Amino acid sequence: MGAIRAKIAGRALAAGDRLPSIRSLATSMGVSPSTVVDAYDRLAAEGQIRARRGSGFYVSPTVMPPLALSEDEPRRDRAVDPFWVSRQSLDTDATVLKPGCGWLPPDWMPDAALRRAVRALARTEASLLTDYGGTRGALTLRRLLLTRLADDAIAASIDQLMLTGSGTQATDLVCRFLLRPGDTVLVDDPCYFNFRALLRAHQVKIISVPYTQSGPDVARFEQILAAERPRLYITNSALHNPTGATLSLPTAHRLLSAAAAHDLTIIEDDIFGDFEPERSPRLAALDGLARVIRIGSFSKTLSASVRCGYIAARADWIEHLVDLQVATSFGGPSPVATEIIARVLAGGGYRKHMDELRQKLARARRDVARKLQALGIEPWLMPRGGIFLWCRLVDGRDATQLARAALEEDVVLAPGNVFSVAQTATSFLRFNVAQMSDPRMWDVMRRALKANGAGL
Amino acid sequence: MGAIRAKIAGRALAAGDRLPSIRSLATSMGVSPSTVVDAYDRLAAEGQIRARRGSGFYVSPTVMPPLALSEDEPRRDRAVDPFWVSRQSLDTDATVLKPGCGWLPPDWMPDAALRRAVRALARTEASLLTDYGGTRGALTLRRLLLTRLADDAIAASIDQLMLTGSGTQATDLVCRFLLRPGDTVLVDDPCYFNFRALLRAHQVKIISVPYTQSGPDVARFEQILAAERPRLYITNSALHNPTGATLSLPTAHRLLSAAAAHDLTIIEDDIFGDFEPERSPRLAALDGLARVIRIGSFSKTLSASVRCGYIAARADWIEHLVDLQVATSFGGPSPVATEIIARVLAGGGYRKHMDELRQKLARARRDVARKLQALGIEPWLMPRGGIFLWCRLVDGRDATQLARAALEEDVVLAPGNVFSVAQTATSFLRFNVAQMSDPRMWDVMRRALKANGAGL
Repeated sequence: MGAIRAKIAGRALAAGDRLPSIRSLATSMGVSPSTVVDAYDRLAAEGQIRARRGSGFYVSPTVMPPLALSEDEPRRDRAVDPFWVSRQSLDTDATVLKPGCGWLPPDWMPDAALRRAVRALARTEASLLTDYGGTRGALTLRRLLLTRLADDAIAASIDQLMLTGSGTQATDLVCRFLLRPGDTVLVDDPCYFNFRALLRAHQVKIISVPYTQSGPDVARFEQILAAERPRLYITNSALHNPTGATLSLPTAHRLLSAAAAHDLTIIEDDIFGDFEPERSPRLAALDGLARVIRIGSFSKTLSASVRCGYIAARADWIEHLVDLQVATSFGGPSPVATEIIARVLAGGGYRKHMDELRQKLARARRDVARKLQALGIEPWLMPRGGIFLWCRLVDGRDATQLARAALEEDVVLAPGNVFSVAQTATSFLRFNVAQMSDPRMWDVMRRALKANGAGL
Repeated sequence: MGAIRAKIAGRALAAGDRLPSIRSLATSMGVSPSTVVDAYDRLAAEGQIRARRGSGFYVSPTVMPPLALSEDEPRRDRAVDPFWVSRQSLDTDATVLKPGCGWLPPDWMPDAALRRAVRALARTEASLLTDYGGTRGALTLRRLLLTRLADDAIAASIDQLMLTGSGTQATDLVCRFLLRPGDTVLVDDPCYFNFRALLRAHQVKIISVPYTQSGPDVARFEQILAAERPRLYITNSALHNPTGATLSLPTAHRLLSAAAAHDLTIIEDDIFGDFEPERSPRLAALDGLARVIRIGSFSKTLSASVRCGYIAARADWIEHLVDLQVATSFGGPSPVATEIIARVLAGGGYRKHMDELRQKLARARRDVARKLQALGIEPWLMPRGGIFLWCRLVDGRDATQLARAALEEDVVLAPGNVFSVAQTATSFLRFNVAQMSDPRMWDVMRRALKANGAGL
């Protein structure tokens, strides 16, 4: 059965192909014909092959399965897989509370600046409203991004930068460029759950390195590079998702030395960078965009509806990534989107908005941490900034059970194991401090904790 | 050399691995040691492997090349490959004339309706301006699309429809779902050049079937399905790109029968459908979205800047395609984009805009055809609608030379072979009748034709 399955999976046997006769296969494999008959019958029962009266067995037409990334539909009972949080929090309506989601509520976003930019858009030249736009995206926004990269001590030239449809699309584009099915890719444990979903789509082997309060465990990182030879490492530096931890300078240096020794490419996803109170080390800055690819977007601080991401990398790589984006999206991001984002960034309001946002988040972080501790939910560390608190259920109970119970009462939590390749975050949860002002949510959490037998 | 190259390409030998010793390889391959030394030296000269003094040969760190879809940069002298037209016409400024491009000039687009929609957007609720939006895209637009599908006699339910970032992204998503590297995919000859670019990105084997004035050559289509067993067929039905031909009902029926017999899935890209004077047969209508996947967008008739595409397919496939879109784009298309498009479609103006557009295009088509014939450029057929004329240089000269000469004078033409997998369209060109009003362009064409030795 294994041999036939392998042939089908590898497409040595295509849909409709006739299988070897029972006698010939029995001979070639040195087994009895009855063994082959038994195997064929089981495969037929599985639907992998079909018997045609008098003419033997054939591979079923529906053999090579399409790429199903998850078994379940986005029903409430779907598995708590990397899609659990995204599907639940993206597709449920506003009456559902989402302390597990990864974005700010609308009234925390720069609404007035966005509306100003949209009104200006209604008066802009016709071509901007109708044309595809250049393959690298609007020059005005790319110029603005260069100055922002310089703030992170990343010296890049205009030909090292391209705009994409979103931060996720930027990561996906780089993966399509660098990876082949079967490659090995390294992520942090815990890591942003959608990195796991994205890498499943690329059919690569995903391995993980434990994340400490100052970055990945460097000793383990070096061992893994030597033993597993990953092609790529994907991480967040500024404010790590989900932990909120910050990469230390010595850790960054050792990471890059190990990466150089093993020819590892690194994607540094900076999506939460603007939430930092003061700048922390960036791998892209130390490395000078040699083997580090910087990725970012404005979905978290400006708008997730007006979407745009970017890639900063080696100029020769950008050239090929542009071809890849033309082939798979035709042209870059929407010129309308890049125009709105550029206007908001250029208007001085954005810096002020971020200052206020950081203060507001600092208050919410302290307040939420206190309330969680009272429930026996302990922050793993107090982040310097950002929207997340990565917390542990002190009595080590299963966060997945808690999440399921909460969802029954229309509260979407983010249980730890959706962030963990090693599935070692069973008693952890990620909370979004900006999404926890509604008292109902806290009542639901208390009930769910009680139902799960908390000794409160 | 071939054996080592294959091992490296297949990653049996990874970067940094030590190659077999010269003696052992010589023995195992039954050749003399000097032959192996020679092969290793050549591979080292190629940079594929490196010699380390005293310790033998190793695979170079930079071995597995990233996915380069085209060899050249978008310089003027880049090869006339599937990227030639897109990169030249997307990235060159407004002073360059683009009769080879695939879109309408801004003043042919519904400018007033777009500005109305943008102004309304500035007054909409905050969440629409800031949130990600649902994974299938805005319900209002999906409902509008269902009624438009019904106009094409395609009965679909809401769970058979999802919105995407663009029509190209819709096609790409389906390819990611259905294809694996090495699969065989069938396209028309000629076909939309970006289908070729997109399929290169999926590393599949691309084969083509000659396209006649009533659709693909059915006899060849049936032979190819039997002989090559393609997994997927990608085509346009309504107004074929680049020919402008229309699929006939008997051809559609025979195509679907052959597809059913060989378990072939079909992507029917309807992007030019709205340009039709009256509706022609759709594969998706005959097939009822069983094995046909309907794809579309509004980039050609509404806006290419405000981008959105869609997929109509089997409900169980849509479910998995949504996961794939979440993993690779996080969420569907921009809610801001879908809101603008829905407002333009809902406002009665769109139907009137399309009526006027069709008349304007009919006039331009007649006028341009006459002028081209005067230059010895003969339309292959007069399309019922749309923006393209697929033409042949009557004296059979090379359209690529003509395109290169025209580009020297800032005119982007679309030479036939960028549309042809079989490279059998050497003397063909695709013209966009809406982009040919500037007299300068006609002067350039005359000069270019003279330079190429036309007897005019």
